[in-house]
Amino acid sequence: MFPLPLLLLLLLLPSPSSAADFCVADYSGPTSPLGFSCKKESAVTASEFVFSGLGTAGNTNNIIKAAVTPAFAAQFAGVNGLGISAARLDLAPGGVVPLHTHPAASELLVVTQGIISAGFISSANTPYTATLRKGDAMVFPQGLLHYQVNAGGITAVAIVSFSSPSPGLQITDFALFANNISTPLIQKVTFLDAEQILKLKKVLGGSG
Amino acid sequence: MFPLPLLLLLLLLPSPSSAADFCVADYSGPTSPLGFSCKKESAVTASEFVFSGLGTAGNTNNIIKAAVTPAFAAQFAGVNGLGISAARLDLAPGGVVPLHTHPAASELLVVTQGIISAGFISSANTPYTATLRKGDAMVFPQGLLHYQVNAGGITAVAIVSFSSPSPGLQITDFALFANNISTPLIQKVTFLDAEQILKLKKVLGGSG
Amino acid sequence: MFPLPLLLLLLLLPSPSSAADFCVADYSGPTSPLGFSCKKESAVTASEFVFSGLGTAGNTNNIIKAAVTPAFAAQFAGVNGLGISAARLDLAPGGVVPLHTHPAASELLVVTQGIISAGFISSANTPYTATLRKGDAMVFPQGLLHYQVNAGGITAVAIVSFSSPSPGLQITDFALFANNISTPLIQKVTFLDAEQILKLKKVLGGSG
Amino acid sequence: MFPLPLLLLLLLLPSPSSAADFCVADYSGPTSPLGFSCKKESAVTASEFVFSGLGTAGNTNNIIKAAVTPAFAAQFAGVNGLGISAARLDLAPGGVVPLHTHPAASELLVVTQGIISAGFISSANTPYTATLRKGDAMVFPQGLLHYQVNAGGITAVAIVSFSSPSPGLQITDFALFANNISTPLIQKVTFLDAEQILKLKKVLGGSG
Amino acid sequence: MFPLPLLLLLLLLPSPSSAADFCVADYSGPTSPLGFSCKKESAVTASEFVFSGLGTAGNTNNIIKAAVTPAFAAQFAGVNGLGISAARLDLAPGGVVPLHTHPAASELLVVTQGIISAGFISSANTPYTATLRKGDAMVFPQGLLHYQVNAGGITAVAIVSFSSPSPGLQITDFALFANNISTPLIQKVTFLDAEQILKLKKVLGGSG
Amino acid sequence: MFPLPLLLLLLLLPSPSSAADFCVADYSGPTSPLGFSCKKESAVTASEFVFSGLGTAGNTNNIIKAAVTPAFAAQFAGVNGLGISAARLDLAPGGVVPLHTHPAASELLVVTQGIISAGFISSANTPYTATLRKGDAMVFPQGLLHYQVNAGGITAVAIVSFSSPSPGLQITDFALFANNISTPLIQKVTFLDAEQILKLKKVLGGSG
Repeated sequence: MFPLPLLLLLLLLPSPSSAADFCVADYSGPTSPLGFSCKKESAVTASEFVFSGLGTAGNTNNIIKAAVTPAFAAQFAGVNGLGISAARLDLAPGGVVPLHTHPAASELLVVTQGIISAGFISSANTPYTATLRKGDAMVFPQGLLHYQVNAGGITAVAIVSFSSPSPGLQITDFALFANNISTPLIQKVTFLDAEQILKLKKVLGGSG
Repeated sequence: MFPLPLLLLLLLLPSPSSAADFCVADYSGPTSPLGFSCKKESAVTASEFVFSGLGTAGNTNNIIKAAVTPAFAAQFAGVNGLGISAARLDLAPGGVVPLHTHPAASELLVVTQGIISAGFISSANTPYTATLRKGDAMVFPQGLLHYQVNAGGITAVAIVSFSSPSPGLQITDFALFANNISTPLIQKVTFLDAEQILKLKKVLGGSG
Repeated sequence: MFPLPLLLLLLLLPSPSSAADFCVADYSGPTSPLGFSCKKESAVTASEFVFSGLGTAGNTNNIIKAAVTPAFAAQFAGVNGLGISAARLDLAPGGVVPLHTHPAASELLVVTQGIISAGFISSANTPYTATLRKGDAMVFPQGLLHYQVNAGGITAVAIVSFSSPSPGLQITDFALFANNISTPLIQKVTFLDAEQILKLKKVLGGSG
Repeated sequence: MFPLPLLLLLLLLPSPSSAADFCVADYSGPTSPLGFSCKKESAVTASEFVFSGLGTAGNTNNIIKAAVTPAFAAQFAGVNGLGISAARLDLAPGGVVPLHTHPAASELLVVTQGIISAGFISSANTPYTATLRKGDAMVFPQGLLHYQVNAGGITAVAIVSFSSPSPGLQITDFALFANNISTPLIQKVTFLDAEQILKLKKVLGGSG
Repeated sequence: MFPLPLLLLLLLLPSPSSAADFCVADYSGPTSPLGFSCKKESAVTASEFVFSGLGTAGNTNNIIKAAVTPAFAAQFAGVNGLGISAARLDLAPGGVVPLHTHPAASELLVVTQGIISAGFISSANTPYTATLRKGDAMVFPQGLLHYQVNAGGITAVAIVSFSSPSPGLQITDFALFANNISTPLIQKVTFLDAEQILKLKKVLGGSG
Repeated sequence: MFPLPLLLLLLLLPSPSSAADFCVADYSGPTSPLGFSCKKESAVTASEFVFSGLGTAGNTNNIIKAAVTPAFAAQFAGVNGLGISAARLDLAPGGVVPLHTHPAASELLVVTQGIISAGFISSANTPYTATLRKGDAMVFPQGLLHYQVNAGGITAVAIVSFSSPSPGLQITDFALFANNISTPLIQKVTFLDAEQILKLKKVLGGSG
């Protein structure tokens, strides 16, 4: 039988550093280049490692007939500092996730319903595209332009994961047409015609 | 109109380094501490960024009534060097993924069917457990012991992703009872009784 | 006076590992996720740490009136594995470096001649822009869309450095209009009109 | 002779950023995923880079006849952020450090007295074991199960170092039997018999 | 035309995490091993990504006839967390940047005026030296001793960049002779003669 | 009892990637920026994780009365890729390890015999020094100049570990006086007198 001394040993062992096991986000603290501050371990409960938002279909009743439900560190405190996060993608028939990048992460998409046509474009301007059915996975390397389009008759759903708790998301059209960058400047750096730019600014809420 | 010189500029721009965009695994080359060698970019096709094995149910006709289908760098060349990988988990009624760790990655699990009871244990010996339904996600921090158990009446399925292309997988029981570590040594380092050890060695194929 | 034993000590000290000091690119060897293989140290000469190409003006006699001269690991063997690289930027009057990203690096630009108007757009679609004169520096965070435009009457020149030996370079227009992605697909993922797409494909050599 | 201007230059040079040289732990500040906050450099003294606790034998008067004295970032402020830490291991005759992992670090053990039998088990369930005498070193890769046992007639002592300031320490038996995880759940995820589990819970203070 | 729902989608997308895009230094917050805390994104303006100090010649009216103007994270808040920084180097005729290291970064120097003779020494004690003219670049691997000397008749200027926002700068002579390390100790660890040490301490302000 | 299917499951589990568990150096393969290539796992034996050289006193019968016995990746294949290495330090009475840096690692020293006076100098030129007795530990931050001196009457011994498998070692005196850098250049970049330089070149084998 083991006497008390073993329990004493247990108490003498290094107390768990918040840096070693996990770092549940403390949204009220300062942020560092690596993410949010860590909650004190004594204040952490199991629920912070669980995220329930991916079970509900996003609202695709919009012009792109698509919805992205993120479970990034900003929404899912438990992934902070752990090098991973996720999101749910809903694409109604005809739906599309427009051309975009994740500046800080690679993405791995797994189709759980329907058919998705997806692709990315390399620095060499080569497109890598595929038609993905239920259970198919595709990886999109960090920082490269990519898109997802519903290629079937029913709503498509995918679970996507990222190699960072804060992958970022830059949709090219929103970056260009949803702010006040002047039309002549956009013309100059994209070669697009002014009327094309003005048309999309109107749609996406841009000015200038 | 843009004349030829623009195309010339295109050709003069830096050719894409294999290190910048992606590093599809060349299984015939040497491995480095960071993973497999990279295929020449000219030999890479879109199909290498796609993995289809996660669409098929694993065979759960075994004693643990469970199956893990990995899409790690060793199976899915496209994720090599990208900091992410995935797997499919099938748990028949009564099924269990026994206590295990991933030495090199955090794990993010998303239930796509059924109910799963899961948990991990921290360095402070605190268990963090949850019952997860379809769409629920749970994160398991790198290197910590965790398990998944079917908690419903039907087969449960989950998509799991990892923060490394090669997360590793060490199932505690297999590490102890599926090799030739001597029974007295196992007794010494686990406090288990000899008969318990011998019983499990018989099941798992261990000797000594 | 120090006798021979000191010299012997010198010989007994750890021989320099190629991994510790530097890793000059051996372009004939395999590449890893972190870059090119290392040349044997005995074959490395001082000239491999020097790059002379940034002293010559690039040819801006093209439609964008701009030239980028890279000194990335693919051109400058000495920077391989060292977390840094550089390039020279020439912008004739009216010149522009179109909207682009570096998927794998942050960029730091220093103007050495003329006036450059530059900017980047954040994930929140906020533009951050500035007019830069000789000696002014601007940093562009990793993976975000940015551009540079000559804003003066004379040729502008800048030295840019990157936080990776292989930063990558993805020019949005070239990614969309310099390959064979079908026009309907581009329409779908960018909201651009077909005629706008076809016009730019003609200029940039795209098909489909 | 060098006049005052040189001293002026000295003052004009970049003041040392706390991020560049070291980051002595400020235990009263917030923690980030990479460790503790940094003390202001002006408040740092030489004593914070020194740890004296490894010179004293740990108390092995317990059932495992072993003691671990950690010098992790939580005890040794000077190693915070520096990628290294250490501990002292005392093993009385018959002593054992039970099967455990360090989730966040590789370990390098050097025997300074006595004889230690040690080993680790790979993901492929292969044991790698050795008998180590004074001056012998053994490395245990990150996250893998390993153990140390006194294999001689006298107390054995080792200095162990880790590739992280906060390596973590998860002793399998304590993770299973020193908390309130229910016996049926442990049975399910370990295949152990209920009576074996209850016996060890009694010893280690577990309930349920 | 796109109705309001698209704009709603925009609002529903993940708000940009400070960790994903950039981390402009908040000098009033705590520092972590990776650098300064991040300013709230709403408080960040374009001017924080611009640094104007590199356009002005440093004052070389001192004994080494040289000046270094840093744009590190401590001076240039925008580079914090981005893995890059820069500095301007002015070398009047006869000027020299004495032997030094950057403990935390590799350096890439580009000559913009004049002629500079530069070199570094490897762990194997091999010198790698070069004479650099306008436009020539040289890379100095992290942590190795190096120097720069004006090798022409006019003032030389260089733009240097670093693979860290806080590269550090340790000038060997200042480390030895500009503080109160005792002369006998310096003798012991450098083999220099006492009178040589005292002579340099006098110049550089050292005591002891 | 568990039937064969469990064993089948075992075989179906991901085979261990060399990248996940360890990467024992294959000295005959190419090196990458992160270290040596990995041996095939089937060729790895337990002996490669063991290094016996630290048990034997180094030969201190030289002018500095000191010896360093390295167990870096170049000597100890098992530490390759694991972020850690070690060395043994012997200092006879009067012995000294001259001023040096490790460009690629922080160092943690533990005294196992005798008394050692040690210190490092920060970028701010502040010395941090201590007198260390048996069992005392001191950490030397990456890249900073430091030294160790025997401060007792008997031979001192220390076990040192490093935060990299290939820490590098640059002894300032050897970098300056054990090669063919010209005396005038050394004068220029160190402010040392020519006769001092020539005296030390004679001792250390330098020319020029």
